[in-house]
Amino acid sequence: VFIIGELINGMYKQVGRAIVDKDKKTIQRIARQQLEQGANALDVNVGPVTNEPVEAMKWLTETIQEVADAPLCFDSTKAAVIEAGLKLAKKKAIINSTTADDEKLNVLLPLAKKYNAGIIGLAMDKTGVPRDRYKRSEHALKIISSCMEQGLDLADVYIDPIVLPVNVAQAQGAEVLESIREFKIISDPPPKTVIGLSNVSQGAKERALINRTFLIMAAAFGLSAAILDPLDQNLMDAVITAELLLNKSIYCDSYLEAYRKK
Amino acid sequence: VFIIGELINGMYKQVGRAIVDKDKKTIQRIARQQLEQGANALDVNVGPVTNEPVEAMKWLTETIQEVADAPLCFDSTKAAVIEAGLKLAKKKAIINSTTADDEKLNVLLPLAKKYNAGIIGLAMDKTGVPRDRYKRSEHALKIISSCMEQGLDLADVYIDPIVLPVNVAQAQGAEVLESIREFKIISDPPPKTVIGLSNVSQGAKERALINRTFLIMAAAFGLSAAILDPLDQNLMDAVITAELLLNKSIYCDSYLEAYRKK
Repeated sequence: VFIIGELINGMYKQVGRAIVDKDKKTIQRIARQQLEQGANALDVNVGPVTNEPVEAMKWLTETIQEVADAPLCFDSTKAAVIEAGLKLAKKKAIINSTTADDEKLNVLLPLAKKYNAGIIGLAMDKTGVPRDRYKRSEHALKIISSCMEQGLDLADVYIDPIVLPVNVAQAQGAEVLESIREFKIISDPPPKTVIGLSNVSQGAKERALINRTFLIMAAAFGLSAAILDPLDQNLMDAVITAELLLNKSIYCDSYLEAYRKK
Repeated sequence: VFIIGELINGMYKQVGRAIVDKDKKTIQRIARQQLEQGANALDVNVGPVTNEPVEAMKWLTETIQEVADAPLCFDSTKAAVIEAGLKLAKKKAIINSTTADDEKLNVLLPLAKKYNAGIIGLAMDKTGVPRDRYKRSEHALKIISSCMEQGLDLADVYIDPIVLPVNVAQAQGAEVLESIREFKIISDPPPKTVIGLSNVSQGAKERALINRTFLIMAAAFGLSAAILDPLDQNLMDAVITAELLLNKSIYCDSYLEAYRKK
């Protein structure tokens, strides 16, 4: 599972304040920590703290890249904010995200093409999040065929089945798992799959336990990538162990340490 | 997941000694503890400590039933030892286990019928454990059709795909998971599925972590039952959370406590 660290998000108090104060040290520390703990890429979201999100995204991108040599995942509902990051990205970036709506696809897929970036496609549209796997697959198919028309490489396309909180949408967990499996047979080569993990435990008491249990199940269903908190060591242990059991890394007694050294 | 506690096994030092010494208290304590921690049934295996396994099974069964009102799972390679337990069982019992070999099926299925017991069928025969899901399904089909011929209710039949240690048979994990899924479409109604969990971590260093990670994955693939150590609280938390996420129990903030009170 390709791990995208979720912590650089202006929604979090410490990060929001760092964006307002132009406090590079805090951002750079959080970037480094996530990579040290096993993140393969970093999500970057300016959050709600500024009226100049384009400037904030530029500053965040430059600040992170001063210390971190990792792919960035530019996370915004505004194409201009995403493009501000893409322009500065030194590594192959990821756009987070488009929906299956034409007005989003028509703007964001050309950006992905122009900057040779990956893109996350949410299996939903403006009418909302589907309640079953079949509707999710319809949205996925729409996104994938649009990406093919735009000439994107499907290996760069991540379809997100959209995880909902277990405490309000309990039946959706199994639908999401089956969707992860089904998305892989929509096209050949198949698209990648991704989930925003933390949403599953939103509002619940046992957040960490619920997060890592769902991640293990999703990994078993073939999940390609996850946006999560890599500083949760039990969560990282869980995903490293899931990969081991799925034969995606080679067994050694100290496989946890071996993964982290890598 | 129907939890079968694995701890009453003469292979374990403390239990082996209790069998030899006719120490009821130790056996009864271990029986109660497992049920208190969430086991739905108890495996009973006299182990290698006695030359009179039939007598030992009788004593164990009586001893356990003095304090525990739970189904027992009589675990032996000898039909006479299993029958000694079946004769005394107060609750619907489970025979652990037959293979797909005719000489086993011809003896054990009539016992299951006679005592109205469930039976675990290992997806293997005397030539050994299969290396892939297809051969596992062949064995499962053989066992299921034999059970149907004997007039057993398939809801009482548990097919075990046979978990192997990750440190020596790493590719088998995914085969076992797919087998759990495939066994369910062999017949209608489908048989149940069961695994002997601890085997997956045999000889590994991170035993508890590997056990609970594999159990979560197996639960996601539809596992019906598992033989495991219910005193491992993290393991029980993991399976309770997996069931929650699979919508098999109703969410409440204190779902862990709610399960244990039940």
